[in-house]
Amino acid sequence: MWRGGVLHGAQVAYETWGELNAARDNAVLLFTGLSPSAHAASSPEDPREGWWQRMVGPGLAIDTDRFFVVCVNSLGSCFGSTGPASADPATGRPYRLSFPDLAVEDIARAGHEAARSLGIERADTVIGPSLGGMVVLAHAALFPGAARRLISISGTIAASPFAIALRSIQREAITSDPDWRHGHYTADRPPASGMGLARKLGTVTYRSAAEWQQRFDRHPVRPDLRSNEPFAAEFSVQGYLESQARRWVNAFDANCYLYLSRAMDRFDLTAHGDPAAVLGKAGLEQALVIGVESDLLFSITEQQAVAQALQAGGAATRFSPLQCIEGHDSFLLDIERFGRELRSFLV
Amino acid sequence: MWRGGVLHGAQVAYETWGELNAARDNAVLLFTGLSPSAHAASSPEDPREGWWQRMVGPGLAIDTDRFFVVCVNSLGSCFGSTGPASADPATGRPYRLSFPDLAVEDIARAGHEAARSLGIERADTVIGPSLGGMVVLAHAALFPGAARRLISISGTIAASPFAIALRSIQREAITSDPDWRHGHYTADRPPASGMGLARKLGTVTYRSAAEWQQRFDRHPVRPDLRSNEPFAAEFSVQGYLESQARRWVNAFDANCYLYLSRAMDRFDLTAHGDPAAVLGKAGLEQALVIGVESDLLFSITEQQAVAQALQAGGAATRFSPLQCIEGHDSFLLDIERFGRELRSFLV
Repeated sequence: MWRGGVLHGAQVAYETWGELNAARDNAVLLFTGLSPSAHAASSPEDPREGWWQRMVGPGLAIDTDRFFVVCVNSLGSCFGSTGPASADPATGRPYRLSFPDLAVEDIARAGHEAARSLGIERADTVIGPSLGGMVVLAHAALFPGAARRLISISGTIAASPFAIALRSIQREAITSDPDWRHGHYTADRPPASGMGLARKLGTVTYRSAAEWQQRFDRHPVRPDLRSNEPFAAEFSVQGYLESQARRWVNAFDANCYLYLSRAMDRFDLTAHGDPAAVLGKAGLEQALVIGVESDLLFSITEQQAVAQALQAGGAATRFSPLQCIEGHDSFLLDIERFGRELRSFLV
Repeated sequence: MWRGGVLHGAQVAYETWGELNAARDNAVLLFTGLSPSAHAASSPEDPREGWWQRMVGPGLAIDTDRFFVVCVNSLGSCFGSTGPASADPATGRPYRLSFPDLAVEDIARAGHEAARSLGIERADTVIGPSLGGMVVLAHAALFPGAARRLISISGTIAASPFAIALRSIQREAITSDPDWRHGHYTADRPPASGMGLARKLGTVTYRSAAEWQQRFDRHPVRPDLRSNEPFAAEFSVQGYLESQARRWVNAFDANCYLYLSRAMDRFDLTAHGDPAAVLGKAGLEQALVIGVESDLLFSITEQQAVAQALQAGGAATRFSPLQCIEGHDSFLLDIERFGRELRSFLV
């Protein structure tokens, strides 16, 4: 591992769409944000809607008629890739906090190895939003020549103190839940209260005040989300957060979340050297950097810095600051604007 | 109380600076944000530094050589005014959650009564930042003619869904701490973990990403704030939050915090009628509205709306959007910019 530990027999889960061509030069390697699985879009094997359903598919912006798309579940996550919830082969029991220190670089390496196992030596494009935006930079730093083009969406060269503050509060909400039990919670009793709080705060930081004004205003909470508990939810926005929290508690493993969240805080491309020099060695021909002005967590200034470093490193770089009001999550919501940017870059 | 309850024998704590003149027309009534006491500045009776030390005093922007300044501890707080931590005269025990529903209007009324008890029928100016910015609007709505001028600093006409979301997460951090015990915590075992989390999140929302980039960057945490606990603080910004949290836990009562925080969510001047019409009846001659562009919690759009309503209500209104980078807390930190605005308005 990047920070020194060793992981034996690690697995990397991925899904693919489209066909690798004979020249093996039409692959798109897609890294995800903190929470999604590799299921970016539906497929014959798994018809459920994917997390980027309207972006990845035949004729869509990431066109699976042209590209062989590989989406990777991050190492350290809990959707098939090895992480703290996986069984340690040495003991047969979950790693929990004995999982080695996880770095964004490890996620990049795991994705790179998955791509190589599919016969991809040089991807046409590597794409990543959010955490994935950090991963694509780590990928460029670690594997020169492994991609012709790079797309960073709402990522950063190094986690900002503001984002670190917000993520560390989310982690503390979990670790201070007595049900967390220093990572030794049971499946029937996860740290639900802490995970719920962490998800609520995450949801706030992924959106924007302007969007919520339009969407929720001061409408009252839905009757089925009312309660007689003291200080219960009164406003619609509180009900929305509550339903987000309830879904999340059973969908994601708490220890995996803690590891991935901390890996984001620790990410700093400058640990590899001057960003322009590091990215200059990556052999990228072109790059696209998309950011959103209403993003609280990965500011538009940070997007500009990513674009400048890529440009200074020699990639022909397009910087697209978008006016979406949905904040950090805009790439999941404003498919029209993001699709237009991706489509015109990927021609 | 505004929402229907009754409070017997309530007390309102206040401090004063300067002298009320013979005409009784030089009073400045100052309401506070959520957490401060009435101790805005030092005095012979209490030489400790106040929360607006460099703003209130002889020759300062709020000039106590000219004005008789009265700062009020909010009803519901825990610094001398009656609140959930106070003894209920009917039982001799703390009210805790039997304290009646608290509204911003109650805080305004308590301050108004305190001023009247000092012989002030019409204040020269009513000033309030943050929660205080809500209180001054409630004061204008409830007590027509009770002030000649009004200064709203980073307040709002009605709490936004984004601010409600953030405050409700802070409250939930407290109510889900087992030590909260449905409000029945003991003095030697307050809900320290929940209060700490709430304070950390509060601190993030009171500041800005740009300020913290300058101030903390990615510096490591101070050695004395390191720990061997899993997921312990690694960055300077986390150490800063931790020291804020530790100070707060012993400085503020959890139930009081919950009541005041919810009162902010519930505040909506439009419950009194159309804001311009409501403020039009207040008899204000002049108003000053100061807001900060980097404020996450009370957006600059909300400041503009306050100014427009005051102007439409007939007060000669100056709107001062400031470029401070310290976010919502700028009024406590950027004394130079804020002082200049207050001084030039109060001539």
